[in-house]
Amino acid sequence: METWDTIRSRRNVRDFDARPIGQGDLDRILEAARRAPSSNNEQPWDFVVVRERAAAERLSGVWHYGGHIAGAAAVIAFVGGASDEPESREWIAFDMGQAAMSAMLAAADLGIGSCHSAVGDQALARDVLGLPGDREVVLLLSLGYPADRPLAPIAMPSRRAFDDVVHRERW
Amino acid sequence: METWDTIRSRRNVRDFDARPIGQGDLDRILEAARRAPSSNNEQPWDFVVVRERAAAERLSGVWHYGGHIAGAAAVIAFVGGASDEPESREWIAFDMGQAAMSAMLAAADLGIGSCHSAVGDQALARDVLGLPGDREVVLLLSLGYPADRPLAPIAMPSRRAFDDVVHRERW
Repeated sequence: METWDTIRSRRNVRDFDARPIGQGDLDRILEAARRAPSSNNEQPWDFVVVRERAAAERLSGVWHYGGHIAGAAAVIAFVGGASDEPESREWIAFDMGQAAMSAMLAAADLGIGSCHSAVGDQALARDVLGLPGDREVVLLLSLGYPADRPLAPIAMPSRRAFDDVVHRERW
Repeated sequence: METWDTIRSRRNVRDFDARPIGQGDLDRILEAARRAPSSNNEQPWDFVVVRERAAAERLSGVWHYGGHIAGAAAVIAFVGGASDEPESREWIAFDMGQAAMSAMLAAADLGIGSCHSAVGDQALARDVLGLPGDREVVLLLSLGYPADRPLAPIAMPSRRAFDDVVHRERW
């Protein structure tokens, strides 16, 4: 898909149809995340991709609003270091945001919807994913084909108005 | 450009040629940032876009490695709330990362290069941009046409190997 169409088509998708995501498509989404830029090119991430239904169902318990995870065709866990240092945590979060956006756009390009989930219960996430104790999951990303309607450019996204968020030269 | 080509073409560009960025192209890049998802759709951002050379030169002083800002055709300041709450700061950082990635890919689609800069001297950034005291600049993004060579898909990006960062089902 043309890039501009992809950017305008990405939306949160929480209900997925039963169609699986092909291995090649999933690897492309992961490759898009891998290519994201990061502070000093530190790439503070690992990606655990889950396709087993039982594991996805367990992962859906990590967050009150994580119900969409149980029905996803695949879930990517964005895993970083469990730093206690606030400034380090901010940079990891920023870089994870870049990697997630890159993955979501690569998915949208393939007609695949996505939805974020925060992770409250890190112990559960670590157990399901087999993570070492010095790692934590910053984000789970559900992926799958939309149950409702295919992705297509959205004319009027639910966002603050352009002239409200954009300032020219000065605030 | 096709989305997959755009994702593979984005790279850090620090040296820009003298060509200005058209207003329509710049607005598309800002629109891509505006459309990014955010936690609870809070959209914790404002974007100040700077095209005046004198202002860009001053902004280049906010960070030791910000020299590329002085020569950019345009600079976007990603402005958020100056929160003292670590968890809030992390989510703002994550969402800013998503907005920045969306903007950078929209730029790459147009052949426009980009480079991040962190902001050390918030007082200087606030002064140049006329920001209220309760705001801070999370990121400056330089934009311009590359001085060296046009953007094109990169076969072997400088990143950890795919099989190193990607884990199947479990760590």
